[in-house]
Amino acid sequence: MHAGALKELFNVLTPRDAFARLAPYLRGPRSVERVRTEDGLGRVLAEDLHSPGSLPTFRRSTMDGYAVRAADTFGSSEALPAYLSVIDEVLMGRPAERSPRLGEAVRIATGGMLPEGADGVVMVENTQDVDDSTIEVLRPVAPGENVIQIGEDVGTGDLLISGGHTLRPQDVGGLLALGIVEVTVASRLRVGIISGGDEIVSPDREPGPGQIRDVNSYTIAALVERAGHTPVRMGIVPDVYEELEQAARAGLESVDVLILSAGSSVSTRDMTAQVITALGTPGVLVHGVSLKPGKPTILAMIGEKPVFGLPGNPVSCMVTFDLFVAPTLHRLAGRSEQEHRQTVAARLTRNVASAPGREDYFQVRLEQRADGLWAEPVFGKSNLIYTLVKADGMVRIDLDTSGLTDGQWVQVILF
Amino acid sequence: MHAGALKELFNVLTPRDAFARLAPYLRGPRSVERVRTEDGLGRVLAEDLHSPGSLPTFRRSTMDGYAVRAADTFGSSEALPAYLSVIDEVLMGRPAERSPRLGEAVRIATGGMLPEGADGVVMVENTQDVDDSTIEVLRPVAPGENVIQIGEDVGTGDLLISGGHTLRPQDVGGLLALGIVEVTVASRLRVGIISGGDEIVSPDREPGPGQIRDVNSYTIAALVERAGHTPVRMGIVPDVYEELEQAARAGLESVDVLILSAGSSVSTRDMTAQVITALGTPGVLVHGVSLKPGKPTILAMIGEKPVFGLPGNPVSCMVTFDLFVAPTLHRLAGRSEQEHRQTVAARLTRNVASAPGREDYFQVRLEQRADGLWAEPVFGKSNLIYTLVKADGMVRIDLDTSGLTDGQWVQVILF
Repeated sequence: MHAGALKELFNVLTPRDAFARLAPYLRGPRSVERVRTEDGLGRVLAEDLHSPGSLPTFRRSTMDGYAVRAADTFGSSEALPAYLSVIDEVLMGRPAERSPRLGEAVRIATGGMLPEGADGVVMVENTQDVDDSTIEVLRPVAPGENVIQIGEDVGTGDLLISGGHTLRPQDVGGLLALGIVEVTVASRLRVGIISGGDEIVSPDREPGPGQIRDVNSYTIAALVERAGHTPVRMGIVPDVYEELEQAARAGLESVDVLILSAGSSVSTRDMTAQVITALGTPGVLVHGVSLKPGKPTILAMIGEKPVFGLPGNPVSCMVTFDLFVAPTLHRLAGRSEQEHRQTVAARLTRNVASAPGREDYFQVRLEQRADGLWAEPVFGKSNLIYTLVKADGMVRIDLDTSGLTDGQWVQVILF
Repeated sequence: MHAGALKELFNVLTPRDAFARLAPYLRGPRSVERVRTEDGLGRVLAEDLHSPGSLPTFRRSTMDGYAVRAADTFGSSEALPAYLSVIDEVLMGRPAERSPRLGEAVRIATGGMLPEGADGVVMVENTQDVDDSTIEVLRPVAPGENVIQIGEDVGTGDLLISGGHTLRPQDVGGLLALGIVEVTVASRLRVGIISGGDEIVSPDREPGPGQIRDVNSYTIAALVERAGHTPVRMGIVPDVYEELEQAARAGLESVDVLILSAGSSVSTRDMTAQVITALGTPGVLVHGVSLKPGKPTILAMIGEKPVFGLPGNPVSCMVTFDLFVAPTLHRLAGRSEQEHRQTVAARLTRNVASAPGREDYFQVRLEQRADGLWAEPVFGKSNLIYTLVKADGMVRIDLDTSGLTDGQWVQVILF
């Protein structure tokens, strides 16, 4: 065994320890902007929002029926109904013109504003018309029944949503309900992507012998986009130290995060590490992770900007993006919430072995059978692109596990 | 009990039966367009794509090492290594200039093109340098070892991705790897949203007594956006039959799907149904679903266009969008794959009761505890907006279940 390979083997960190070296540098949000709330879907809120008012601002009926003084209905039943005079009707979007007094009721629809004096709503189903202006009440209502009180949904000054939350459709609606028409959110991060390799050509070109089309920079760009940020593809750079350093240095100036998608050979990986080291300090924090696929990963910081060297093979590239780049982007955007990863539980269709002391990921295809969801491993050399296309997700084998068994329940991380 | 309410109770369908009435009308994709593959993330592919070529187009090394004739290494060991002359080096992105003959090796890096004559790669870790041009091979390789064969990833004519699949980052990369730089995808659907109600005002206005700001049309717009389509908000229309009919008729002309977000009172619901009936045939297919919240849902078809009457309360509105509108949009876009809903498994923190014969949904907040993920029900009158904002997802109680128990595992549908 080569001395270099041996050294690398003993230096590599677990994925968790590797990310822990980078994490202290990642405070966010890095910058913020104001957007219209209606355009805020998927953006990360950068302020704690407190309610400027109450919701609702008036007592609302939750039923179609009659606004009454609840005491008037006490003791009523089908055998012994209470008789009430219907004196008015509440129009939607307007206050009632008349207040019910003793023995009186006001017709009201769901969402209508309770008249002054009324303190409960009798559902129409629990009444019987006697004539045009009189009803029988067949069941009593308690004070407050079928009514939403002022501020019952939200009170003035209540914390609505904390900074760091990613806005969902109901959050957009909820903020607009209170008249919050603009919000401060984390700016989208600009993520530069440089593809390194003498063998790489643009997808619109016909590759010559020994050449392949660029896959990773487009896959990474789409991963960045899916994470809610802005990919900036910076082209293909040959495996020449000066050219890669120049491209990386120029690129880093215009982005918040830089990704170098290098080849998988030891020499190109070493060149990537040297280039990153030359860019500034603190430089390379991690070079090699006890992870399969994805071992030759580089995590670095140049000033305040994270720089990644991701392995050239497409499967490794996706796994390491997911483990290191995605959480970096979340932190730089100031996302605070726990990530509930998109996972489904499924049973494995066969045994999968793994070396203890290394975190392994393998791709699976999901299959809905009569007895539930099954995960069929999709194997293939990790350099194959279409194992990713054929797969629905991936399964992790923990560091301290020597494998998984046929029929075992696993969590499939969808991608 | 009113005759009308009684009738409605016996007419309502289960959510599954309700959707089954609409489903036969929903064939897609309705229209298609060409987009650049690199812009295709999240789009629904509208064609079966077959491979125009092989991947890889040449035999690639998967390791750093030496391309050899495998037979030259047979029987080699640390005790009895095979000696080979290193005659050349394969440059990345180029064919080898010389082929190894008996007893010869060519240096090669991961991803390099195998020279003619070589049929295996010895990993550098399994060699020892003797001098500048000679190596010892310490372990044999089999023919084909550490080599990806031509077409091993994809062969010419292979089905790459079927129509109906939603493009993910790795699909974008995989297609570009084969030079497929444009694809045919389903056009985004235009979804019109009309907010009905005399009490509704625009979010930028201060509501008067009895008035509330528009929540639902913005929440629905964001739900449409999240589903990958184009929301078209068509304003707020008062509860006047002629005005609602005119708005719906005009709106329907310019969109693929129309959603009427009506009030929750019986009279506005009935008006919505009458308006839809007046628009054309086949008209209203479902009016009322055995679902809580969400019972007063209307599913209709006018010509080839689905029309929905969604309940006015925000929680019902979200649940019914999820159950009926989202799958409608997926079908109209021609999405074929099984939906693996974004769910997480969690344990319930308390008992939740339910009426059998009705599908119930309740909101939960997720809490990561030392012993795993727990789902804490977030209760509240279904008219409250902030139960949705406080919740991380919802849990379904099946028709034939009378409730769920404390500690039980449930699938939380994230939203």
